[in-house]
Amino acid sequence: MRFGLSMTVQQHLDTDMVSALEENCVMVRHARDQGWDSVFCGQHYLNTGDNQKLQQVPMLARLQAEAGEMGVGLGVMLINLHNPVYVAETVASLDVIWRGNLVFGVGLGYREVEFDAFGVPKGQRLRRFLEVLEVTRRLWSEERVSFESDWCRLEDVHMNIRPVQRPHPPIWVAANNDRMVQRAARIGDTWYINPHSTTATIRRHLALYREALRAAGRPDPAVLPCGKEIFCARDRPTALEQAGPYLAGKYRDYARWGQDRVMPGGEDFNRPFEELLRDRFILGSPEECVEQLRPYVEELGINHFNFRTRWAGMPLATALASMRLISGEVIPALRAMAPR
Amino acid sequence: MRFGLSMTVQQHLDTDMVSALEENCVMVRHARDQGWDSVFCGQHYLNTGDNQKLQQVPMLARLQAEAGEMGVGLGVMLINLHNPVYVAETVASLDVIWRGNLVFGVGLGYREVEFDAFGVPKGQRLRRFLEVLEVTRRLWSEERVSFESDWCRLEDVHMNIRPVQRPHPPIWVAANNDRMVQRAARIGDTWYINPHSTTATIRRHLALYREALRAAGRPDPAVLPCGKEIFCARDRPTALEQAGPYLAGKYRDYARWGQDRVMPGGEDFNRPFEELLRDRFILGSPEECVEQLRPYVEELGINHFNFRTRWAGMPLATALASMRLISGEVIPALRAMAPR
Repeated sequence: MRFGLSMTVQQHLDTDMVSALEENCVMVRHARDQGWDSVFCGQHYLNTGDNQKLQQVPMLARLQAEAGEMGVGLGVMLINLHNPVYVAETVASLDVIWRGNLVFGVGLGYREVEFDAFGVPKGQRLRRFLEVLEVTRRLWSEERVSFESDWCRLEDVHMNIRPVQRPHPPIWVAANNDRMVQRAARIGDTWYINPHSTTATIRRHLALYREALRAAGRPDPAVLPCGKEIFCARDRPTALEQAGPYLAGKYRDYARWGQDRVMPGGEDFNRPFEELLRDRFILGSPEECVEQLRPYVEELGINHFNFRTRWAGMPLATALASMRLISGEVIPALRAMAPR
Repeated sequence: MRFGLSMTVQQHLDTDMVSALEENCVMVRHARDQGWDSVFCGQHYLNTGDNQKLQQVPMLARLQAEAGEMGVGLGVMLINLHNPVYVAETVASLDVIWRGNLVFGVGLGYREVEFDAFGVPKGQRLRRFLEVLEVTRRLWSEERVSFESDWCRLEDVHMNIRPVQRPHPPIWVAANNDRMVQRAARIGDTWYINPHSTTATIRRHLALYREALRAAGRPDPAVLPCGKEIFCARDRPTALEQAGPYLAGKYRDYARWGQDRVMPGGEDFNRPFEELLRDRFILGSPEECVEQLRPYVEELGINHFNFRTRWAGMPLATALASMRLISGEVIPALRAMAPR
């Protein structure tokens, strides 16, 4: 059972970003000292509304200096916005900086403003995603690579810089809809489960995922990872009072961005907050958090959680108090559970 | 008078890259403790031949943790390979990580394999360079930006993440030929002088640069920076013996890459080593190094040196011994000189 810390990179516009990074360093050092396994961070460009964020690659590179023997994960990189040579060399460099302990999480993205900005035409997003992943993998593992498209031409090139992990770091594929979940079984080392999915959705998708694995003649993955947003206090009312305003703001942003429109079954983030929380957010006393997470472990077989423990605007001290309970009581109880 | 450390990122193929990074951290800490001002690092993709290197952005982000109050420079970023949203957000993030002490060095690049890989068509390299620089600057300084080309579409976007330095970090433009030097006067905050140019070439280009400044109604730049490769030992024969093999290898690589073909006046790197050294390389005893650098300060007016002090394959101990002499004897003598 592994635990990653999903870094809080979204910050309000009036936040001093230098101080925000120092606070993120404090959170990484807490996680390091309390035996968490890794640090994860996502990627978006052109944040809208009230939020700003540091870019994933320089952020994660900087955080390594605080992380001791922990590992790192791109959770996820929007690879279809980028060139495969950029992806291969940058991720290989991060794997070196993190001493061969990197997870390469990849996702398709969903925001028009990003695809427009990076010149990815409508109708080519999936194709580009698959091509970048394939060429990146070849650059890492083959001696000479040739590839030609209108946005990249490689003629018998050899990539000298390679990841520490040979032939390449584990590839986690984020997937929110049926076909992408099935695709994850074919193209990735595991399926990276969305923090926003309900357990009902995950259960249905897991069946599809395992079926696709069998069809491809591939074994179940060693790691089944899931993101989760979690806040812990002595009791649920206190947790709701302390975390509520920041969680609500976050879901408002997702609704604005249309993250829910890419979720299956008409899930809609524009709903009352308490209803959104249910079956999606882990919140309450340590004992309540453990019970809310139990089905993920015992029924679904999750054996890697990436916990987001803080949201834009939440004071560092509040997040650290929650993390102390998570580190001291929730994680030990989960480590003692028998995964499915 | 300022001094930057140009990081040695080129490593031989059999070098353990994790250890190489640790050695680079040692060099940064030496520079920090000895009062150097900044850390610089260049960018290339698809290194060929016998060398591998970490990518510039994650490398520089990681090194900040060793750098105390030093600043950083991209020396240079090949911006026409990249998307302006990528450039603006990534460089802003680095400026945050380095606490508002970043220099944004930009260059045009010259390697076909890079332009091909990143899909930059022949005949569009300069135009793309100018567009990326302009859009990046607008994203940093304007409220709403619109821009349309076949590789980027921005519709009234606002970039939330901004550099600490407002409106943006100083822009240093690398330039090796007459027209690019003149262009640097119009589009940048200063001209970043190539480490490989002879003093005769620099002298001629400086006249062109100052003339272009006057034509544009712009004052002389506050900072006139120049890269230099320097190796220092008790005497010149020892310096040649210790550094010679590594310097020679480096120039062989440049010749292979065609860096000399973009230099003016038929400069050719395929020449006997001693001849290449002359007027280009700073090498010898501390006193000899100071005398070799004197014309750069007193005649040319250079007031920022970026010193490369180590080359692929050179043992760390050898480089540190040289750096101790540079830090203890060369830099203090240069700080005491009166710039032109």
